[in-house]
Amino acid sequence: MSTTTLADIVAALGGDLHGDGTAIIGHLAALEDADPTAIAFLSNPRYTSQLAQSQAGCVIVAPAVEAAARERGACIVTPNPYLYFARLTQWWRQRHPVRGTPGIHPSAVVDATAQVHPTASIGPLCVVEAGARIGADTVLTSRITIGYGCTVGERCIIHPGAVIGADGFGFAQEQGKWVKIEQLGNVRIGNDVEIGANTCIDRGALNDTVLEDGVKLDNLIQIAHNVQVGAHTAMAAFVGVSGSSTIGAHCTLAGGAGVSGHLNIVDGVHVSAHTVISRSVTKKGQYTGLYPFEEHREWERNAASLRQLNTLRTRIKTLEKELAALSSQLP
Amino acid sequence: MSTTTLADIVAALGGDLHGDGTAIIGHLAALEDADPTAIAFLSNPRYTSQLAQSQAGCVIVAPAVEAAARERGACIVTPNPYLYFARLTQWWRQRHPVRGTPGIHPSAVVDATAQVHPTASIGPLCVVEAGARIGADTVLTSRITIGYGCTVGERCIIHPGAVIGADGFGFAQEQGKWVKIEQLGNVRIGNDVEIGANTCIDRGALNDTVLEDGVKLDNLIQIAHNVQVGAHTAMAAFVGVSGSSTIGAHCTLAGGAGVSGHLNIVDGVHVSAHTVISRSVTKKGQYTGLYPFEEHREWERNAASLRQLNTLRTRIKTLEKELAALSSQLP
Amino acid sequence: MSTTTLADIVAALGGDLHGDGTAIIGHLAALEDADPTAIAFLSNPRYTSQLAQSQAGCVIVAPAVEAAARERGACIVTPNPYLYFARLTQWWRQRHPVRGTPGIHPSAVVDATAQVHPTASIGPLCVVEAGARIGADTVLTSRITIGYGCTVGERCIIHPGAVIGADGFGFAQEQGKWVKIEQLGNVRIGNDVEIGANTCIDRGALNDTVLEDGVKLDNLIQIAHNVQVGAHTAMAAFVGVSGSSTIGAHCTLAGGAGVSGHLNIVDGVHVSAHTVISRSVTKKGQYTGLYPFEEHREWERNAASLRQLNTLRTRIKTLEKELAALSSQLP
Repeated sequence: MSTTTLADIVAALGGDLHGDGTAIIGHLAALEDADPTAIAFLSNPRYTSQLAQSQAGCVIVAPAVEAAARERGACIVTPNPYLYFARLTQWWRQRHPVRGTPGIHPSAVVDATAQVHPTASIGPLCVVEAGARIGADTVLTSRITIGYGCTVGERCIIHPGAVIGADGFGFAQEQGKWVKIEQLGNVRIGNDVEIGANTCIDRGALNDTVLEDGVKLDNLIQIAHNVQVGAHTAMAAFVGVSGSSTIGAHCTLAGGAGVSGHLNIVDGVHVSAHTVISRSVTKKGQYTGLYPFEEHREWERNAASLRQLNTLRTRIKTLEKELAALSSQLP
Repeated sequence: MSTTTLADIVAALGGDLHGDGTAIIGHLAALEDADPTAIAFLSNPRYTSQLAQSQAGCVIVAPAVEAAARERGACIVTPNPYLYFARLTQWWRQRHPVRGTPGIHPSAVVDATAQVHPTASIGPLCVVEAGARIGADTVLTSRITIGYGCTVGERCIIHPGAVIGADGFGFAQEQGKWVKIEQLGNVRIGNDVEIGANTCIDRGALNDTVLEDGVKLDNLIQIAHNVQVGAHTAMAAFVGVSGSSTIGAHCTLAGGAGVSGHLNIVDGVHVSAHTVISRSVTKKGQYTGLYPFEEHREWERNAASLRQLNTLRTRIKTLEKELAALSSQLP
Repeated sequence: MSTTTLADIVAALGGDLHGDGTAIIGHLAALEDADPTAIAFLSNPRYTSQLAQSQAGCVIVAPAVEAAARERGACIVTPNPYLYFARLTQWWRQRHPVRGTPGIHPSAVVDATAQVHPTASIGPLCVVEAGARIGADTVLTSRITIGYGCTVGERCIIHPGAVIGADGFGFAQEQGKWVKIEQLGNVRIGNDVEIGANTCIDRGALNDTVLEDGVKLDNLIQIAHNVQVGAHTAMAAFVGVSGSSTIGAHCTLAGGAGVSGHLNIVDGVHVSAHTVISRSVTKKGQYTGLYPFEEHREWERNAASLRQLNTLRTRIKTLEKELAALSSQLP
């Protein structure tokens, strides 16, 4: 692999280069860690003060900070430096490839009736069951199970340990015992979906569980049976979505958030970390329900009072009435 | 596989059929999605109003709604439609089998000293360590580890990625460093237990970790060392039970619930989602501890006040005293 | 394997034996379960009253309870019985080995460019990608993925299903769609680290994700990209640490705790179960933020009042003002 110059980068990704195009770039780095062989970026204007100190060989910046950046040294000016940086990581990765050789690794167990696109990559020790379909350019990294009848679209990336199409969790009761409801649906995953390590997406009970195009799931997520996740929605680790809920498009769910079953959440809803959505959300916006942390001793006092909260409310009401009565007695 | 008629279903599962027994059923569906080739069910009386609109070829109903159902079209009348539906999914699945061919998949790594019942099914890429025992008709789907000395009963279903018998998390301290306590117990799992994808059940430190008959665990659950889970208890995704706690029979723990260590929870306890049980529970019933979500701005205000809650309580007490003193001064 | 006597144990691990050194010990047990062939320990003085009833063949005790212990029967006296017990489990395990035959299991998929120390053990169905390095005496139990370029130190134990070096979760936005930021860093794990089943440690975006020496992670933990965890810090199941946060040394995070992104937590911080650390912590100590559980009906009332909390605070302030005004009116 040949060396990379600033001119190579701008030729591939655009942007206005100010500085020496023949300068060699050896790696990408954060602004504060960068040395003269590194290219860095400045996205958040809050960190503009760090610019002058950076040793980076080149910094990707927005037009608003071009003057300051040029004073420091080489820079690439582009409207959205963070997006440019993302494209740069992709271009860099393509020149240093690490995953996704097309074809099926000999250690993978792929059913004869599964349909795997020739450009898809099924990594070591994956299981692809009967009738599953894997689309073009999709990468199953390693140790992944795709259940029978499930579908994965094109250009998806699935990380190790993910389980697509285990049975949903459904039981009827008979005299205190659980009677299994066989899960007869599948999982359908759109294009450009990324699924994190050890994340689980259960098959539907009757209908399919569906992830639409562009959904991004972090590690250790649980998507229960019959859930539908709208396009370009992203979820962080430990998010759990209970059965038959529908999440809109362009939503974000932060780490540890939960959604109860049979709910409907509209497009553009943002759920804060460890917040449980326990009823449908009909209005876009940010929603939060998190006990704020404090020093343990403080928490002990406040949490004890929390158990009295309804009583305190009644005492306030009583005080208000008594005070009003008292006031009216006075001249 | 031959076609299925309503008469076939009633012959296998009972119930009173009202309608044409020769009608062909092609699939099972939810009431609102069903077409004339589908059989659906009505379990919750709240949805009775949906009955008339349903296009289902046949609906499974309770005696209370028989009249309305017969007016609409074919129906099967049975005391518990949801249970009937569960049995129907099982019968349907048996006719369209997808898992559990008896025997050991050639890609599985099974120790020579493990005892696997000939009717059990060990799926692709499973690991069964020394001395482990797997009972009759139990299914290990794929990519599961059963640790040395662990026991799984009969008719169990274990989903991909589950880890039975990893070391419990136990350490002593020596001058700020952790000294491992080797985990010398095993895991013992009863009959008719189902274990979800990527769920972990740790081996005991000295005694065994035990799941009794009929326990149902969803995906991504953590059962720590020496925990005992009583018969027919069910847990949803992300439930964590800490070390040495005992959970009674016929309990349910909703998603994200937690149980601290060394506690005792009696039979028939129901724990709400994301609720942490931090002391033993001696009385059956439902228990909850969840911060209710709201719009982020509202939450900010209320959460800030929560940190003042104990102070607010003191201020209310002061107000009460002062008001009483004032009252007593008046004629 | 020969039988074990009390004299063998003291010869190997020290301590003052009071009793018959030729007595044979068949197993280790908890004080309350022990029979005459078992050795038990008494660590917490709170349980001293259980000593007299124990049927244990020998009890490991601290000097403070030596007199009571000798009255009962054989005992080993040592300053820290729990630590002695930990060492005893290790010594016992070495005589009854269950894991860690050096070498690479034939079913593992290890890249030709990976460097695995000859004393390391790579168990069944593991994946070790290009350029990864595994140090001396480290054990990968089974079904583990170590990503390209990642490093694991010496004497580490990694449990089944763990994923080291999946991509961090990083995306830029472009017109409502997510653009992947390729993760160009690695994971670096020190010596004497233990990692639980199905735990995930993501590779860094630019820099490496780092676990220092002696870190102990339970099952089902998420360590996001660029996180740094200080030496001898321990985390229980379901802990999630978001991207670019730094956790100090000698910290503990209880089950279900979370740390938001880009925070700094100093050494010696203890986070309670299900507590979310949402800003940097600069002072050691214990921190908590957990909604206390109660019977569901009580919770309903209090949680409803919680949504009014800021309003209640205003009403208290009003009451205080009005009462003061009233007081001043009186003679």
